[in-house]
Amino acid sequence: MISKNQKNQITALSQKKYRDESGLFVAEGTKLVLDLAKSFRVHYLVATADWAQESGKILKTEIQIISKEDLNKISNQKTPQGVLAVFKKPDYILAESDILTQLSLALDDVQDPGNLGTIIRVADWFGIRDVICSEHCADAFGPKTVQATMGALARVRVHYVNLENFLQSISKKIPIYGTFMNGNDIYSETLSQQGIILMGNEGNGIAGKTEKLVTNRLLIPNFPKGEPTSESLNVGVATALVCGEFRRRG
Amino acid sequence: MISKNQKNQITALSQKKYRDESGLFVAEGTKLVLDLAKSFRVHYLVATADWAQESGKILKTEIQIISKEDLNKISNQKTPQGVLAVFKKPDYILAESDILTQLSLALDDVQDPGNLGTIIRVADWFGIRDVICSEHCADAFGPKTVQATMGALARVRVHYVNLENFLQSISKKIPIYGTFMNGNDIYSETLSQQGIILMGNEGNGIAGKTEKLVTNRLLIPNFPKGEPTSESLNVGVATALVCGEFRRRG
Repeated sequence: MISKNQKNQITALSQKKYRDESGLFVAEGTKLVLDLAKSFRVHYLVATADWAQESGKILKTEIQIISKEDLNKISNQKTPQGVLAVFKKPDYILAESDILTQLSLALDDVQDPGNLGTIIRVADWFGIRDVICSEHCADAFGPKTVQATMGALARVRVHYVNLENFLQSISKKIPIYGTFMNGNDIYSETLSQQGIILMGNEGNGIAGKTEKLVTNRLLIPNFPKGEPTSESLNVGVATALVCGEFRRRG
Repeated sequence: MISKNQKNQITALSQKKYRDESGLFVAEGTKLVLDLAKSFRVHYLVATADWAQESGKILKTEIQIISKEDLNKISNQKTPQGVLAVFKKPDYILAESDILTQLSLALDDVQDPGNLGTIIRVADWFGIRDVICSEHCADAFGPKTVQATMGALARVRVHYVNLENFLQSISKKIPIYGTFMNGNDIYSETLSQQGIILMGNEGNGIAGKTEKLVTNRLLIPNFPKGEPTSESLNVGVATALVCGEFRRRG
């Protein structure tokens, strides 16, 4: 049986402060929990008796049984799927030797958890192993982002750094690509498979202090060209279009 | 001053049934309301006294004043921006002569309002004028979708039809493209600028009865090719990648 302390802990883990202090995060749902359990250490796992009987056998982890009513209370989901796991947050090393030999994403204050989740899923699809976030980005281990990654969080390493310092440290060594309304048409630019794709904040785009470190300014052209109607694309969609074009050439 | 009946109506308009009966829908926020007012008839517009003084002058519409407290009560937004408008829903004609001479999107039971909003925004960016939805798609005029379109709803015509019948009626005349895990690499296929791009439901993809009408099966390749890790891309992201590739060649 799940303890009162565990219930309180699961509720507290919806706050970033407590996730940072404890080094733990929560994921829910059969597919997601099973996917993440392949990459992250399970701290504990709670499930309804029905779930434990139907789906619990494939797991080696001990299952703490919880009533449906109690799961509804602590769950972040509208319709909980019978299982919730508390995982240890991973401890990734951001190695310059990796970054210099691959294509990576950098995010400048992407604030919406759903957008961050979509971007992590896009990174996974396009074989991008490292996503480097500024300190004010949404937390990849918050419940909304974790759910939105659909398991991609298990395969993509998300780092939080001082983004200006990080970009400064590699800016002479590999290209840093950013998208701007006055950039060069991405379809006619040279694109390297070793570089950084920098994406900006939902409202303000790429900030001035990181913009000055961008070496290659790109534009995703709209259609018909030269008649912009929308002001911008959603940042998750823009990330997909840019990564897709890099990988089409890859 | 806003009347009690109007307040009740605005609350009722969060339900599809009432939107269908009344032919009205709600939009909130300065930019969105001003964008939509260019294309749709304003039934009435409510705003705080502050908003009316600051931003109301550019509008020719009469403004019904509402208190901040009352606006908070009837708003669908966490932080209302001071203005809310009730618009007449447009009455679009789906003309075969248009469809046969352009690229259009068809959506088979896309159910998430946020995804539908993203797709309408993508359509706008890529100059796609008509989005043809199956009857079980999310409602383009529901509050979440309206807000997610960021004004693109003013420029893209969204239709609701029996999708199987519609696709059947044009399937011999122009290509119908769909994406599948076993489709042909989109980057090496011939793509026509007169055709239909069919996108499927979030969980189940394209349904059997519309799948049989697809004439060209496409695949968005992941990277590195042949090592799929994620099971799928979000439908908004997939729509963007497909539309982007069509328009890159356009």
